Amino acid sequence: MSPIANVTLNPQANVYFGGKCVSHSFTLADGTQKSAGVVLPAELTFNTGAAEIMECVAGGCEYRLAGSDGWQKSGPGERFEIPANSAFDIRVAEAYHYICHYA
Amino acid sequence: MSPIANVTLNPQANVYFGGKCVSHSFTLADGTQKSAGVVLPAELTFNTGAAEIMECVAGGCEYRLAGSDGWQKSGPGERFEIPANSAFDIRVAEAYHYICHYA
Repeated sequence: MSPIANVTLNPQANVYFGGKCVSHSFTLADGTQKSAGVVLPAELTFNTGAAEIMECVAGGCEYRLAGSDGWQKSGPGERFEIPANSAFDIRVAEAYHYICHYA
Repeated sequence: MSPIANVTLNPQANVYFGGKCVSHSFTLADGTQKSAGVVLPAELTFNTGAAEIMECVAGGCEYRLAGSDGWQKSGPGERFEIPANSAFDIRVAEAYHYICHYA
């Protein structure tokens, strides 16, 4: 994954689930908000407010959208989308590095 | 702590000590490398290659430089410097959000 140029970075991390997920928020030049984060070995459930697109930067995960039976894999360069006001389960064996885009 | 404008962000996190410390590296427009990270509750020892300046962004820590007896506190806006090829102990009760500058 290439570095992302010309961003404004918030140096205060977002820490979720006692540190099983840590991200840093940033904005692009046009004001679009995103975050870059990592999920460490865990099985977690995230709730969405706005719709999100999770893009894998390195490592990988399995995820299951709310209302879905099956786990799907997501690896480097792959994305999955979560609707607004929904949820997804994620399980990570090693590390899942991601960019979170708000759709 | 204000956001840091006009940086190039590496979206792949650096994960140390099983996730007790997580950072994202970034470069300024002039090519200077830094990282923004967080240390979660732990007592850790870090080794330096290049000299480093640790700047507290939020939360706080206690640190002890190699060869020093005493623990010092560092809180928001405060910095401490670690020589090259040295080490420091850090202990964190809640969270220590930092920017690491290479001196």
